[in-house]
Amino acid sequence: MRIVVLAGGIGGARFLRGLKQAAPDGAAITVIGNTGDDIHLFGLKVCPDLDTVMYTLGGGINEEQGWGRTDEAFTVKEELAAYGVGPKWFGLGDRDFATHIVRTQMLGAGYPLSAVTEALCERWQPGVRLLPMSDDRVETHVAVDVDGERKAVHFQEYWVKLRASVDAQAVVPVGAEQAKPAPGVLEAIAEADVILFPPSNPVVSVGTILAVPGIREGIEKSTAPVVGLSPIVGDAPVRGMADKVLAAVGVESSAAAVAEHYGAAKDGGLLDGWLVDTVDEKAVERVEAAGIACRAVPLMMTDPVEGTAAAEMAREALKLAEEVRGA
Amino acid sequence: MRIVVLAGGIGGARFLRGLKQAAPDGAAITVIGNTGDDIHLFGLKVCPDLDTVMYTLGGGINEEQGWGRTDEAFTVKEELAAYGVGPKWFGLGDRDFATHIVRTQMLGAGYPLSAVTEALCERWQPGVRLLPMSDDRVETHVAVDVDGERKAVHFQEYWVKLRASVDAQAVVPVGAEQAKPAPGVLEAIAEADVILFPPSNPVVSVGTILAVPGIREGIEKSTAPVVGLSPIVGDAPVRGMADKVLAAVGVESSAAAVAEHYGAAKDGGLLDGWLVDTVDEKAVERVEAAGIACRAVPLMMTDPVEGTAAAEMAREALKLAEEVRGA
Repeated sequence: MRIVVLAGGIGGARFLRGLKQAAPDGAAITVIGNTGDDIHLFGLKVCPDLDTVMYTLGGGINEEQGWGRTDEAFTVKEELAAYGVGPKWFGLGDRDFATHIVRTQMLGAGYPLSAVTEALCERWQPGVRLLPMSDDRVETHVAVDVDGERKAVHFQEYWVKLRASVDAQAVVPVGAEQAKPAPGVLEAIAEADVILFPPSNPVVSVGTILAVPGIREGIEKSTAPVVGLSPIVGDAPVRGMADKVLAAVGVESSAAAVAEHYGAAKDGGLLDGWLVDTVDEKAVERVEAAGIACRAVPLMMTDPVEGTAAAEMAREALKLAEEVRGA
Repeated sequence: MRIVVLAGGIGGARFLRGLKQAAPDGAAITVIGNTGDDIHLFGLKVCPDLDTVMYTLGGGINEEQGWGRTDEAFTVKEELAAYGVGPKWFGLGDRDFATHIVRTQMLGAGYPLSAVTEALCERWQPGVRLLPMSDDRVETHVAVDVDGERKAVHFQEYWVKLRASVDAQAVVPVGAEQAKPAPGVLEAIAEADVILFPPSNPVVSVGTILAVPGIREGIEKSTAPVVGLSPIVGDAPVRGMADKVLAAVGVESSAAAVAEHYGAAKDGGLLDGWLVDTVDEKAVERVEAAGIACRAVPLMMTDPVEGTAAAEMAREALKLAEEVRGA
């Protein structure tokens, strides 16, 4: 079974840890990772979502915070601050720095990001094939109004520095229109037996991946069932601040509205199936009315390290995929 | 009093610490630093000699080893090794990495090395004006015979990895011929009241600086006294492996031979004065016979942290400069 997953950072990574347990023996998992939140810091190329997937599945993640390396110190960052070099708001640990140094060196030598990611994964052995959505630079910017003036800030500045404390007026994946899917991305989608949207952010994670020309079209064309898991539980994001960026694209923060946002495959949208949390059981009817098969199952990853809950969620997603297959 | 010093790494830096104590009030010290041992490691630009001067005079040096930062850990390097990325033989600590990251980022943004060095020194306040010999890339290569084959290795590979365990057949400052002195270098030499060669390596430190077109000529033209201190004491290098690279340029490892190698200013060479260690008193006659005023004084920097011995050496050098001034 060939499973393709469009993943953002923490939520996607933790879901993938469960999926690896839940997938049938011999299943091949290809992860198409969001790179819209990539950022250049200190002259180094940082890919937060790719690294979160890689570290989580490879056993190097800081489990408590969900991103970055375990057992971290911040000597390099403190030294950079002593030189007056920032930003201070982005937490890069010493171990993490090494990843960005290797990546930047390889990119500088002419390797595309996909080849670099493969090389980094040789160390981490994440047990999935991790592909960046594109080798081209895509950078998600968020338009915000500050002191009456509209300005665009990098997604990381919005998310990490401002902590989404101001409303997002628009979310723009700069460069996406000109980007090409990375080698292997469209092939993986075309050959997939199942396509999954983990409970990642539908705007700045999955949405950014879908903004790369060819990816959305490939999924629409695919005959494989496409099943997603709601990142919204009880009208609030499970983690992060997805409600803020959903508002920017005019989508209410509810499990049903996100499904409608992706749209029903049978009506030219993307989804064949959608999982909502049991607290959102009332949403099932609305989602099914939109032409998407829907089940209410527990969607809280209560034991992220063991991944038992995530594995059960993945099992439910694969089960729903079989139910809707060829429907 | 305007003092210009051509400096390599550890020996030059420790001498400069003494010179700062010995120089008259209001003296301005300009250091022209060797960049021939610069190396790109992990995609980062590393300038070992400039950093040794900066850290030593700025209070950040690891006093025991004479290079690198104090209170260092090696997390980043260990992580790079875990990615299979080397070299392992070059000791870059976590704090040190920050310096190279800032430098590389600024160079990438288009700043010349001289401007980068000035920016780094804003933090360290070394109390001297530290100029790289050139903003252009110069890289000292050493020709060695390995298994019957001649090959060129980077100076750092020869010095740090091979520990000069094989004979140097030739020493070539690659790029020096095309290099231009950094802004301020020739002006500092032209305006100098005294020019000093600290007990730095005469081939791969001072020799490399002199290989940048214009610098040797500027010193030859200068009417300021030029006084050097022998890095060879009792026919052996005080530290390092200067004898190996002296042999490569056909110079015997003795205090007198190094003076003759620099040559007497009055005969178109560089030196007006030369200090040898008291154990080399017999060399005085030979050096003076070569037309260079020579004194035997203690040249062992026995208390590098306090710099009392180095200060006394600097006082002797300044004294000899006054003796030979206008001679």
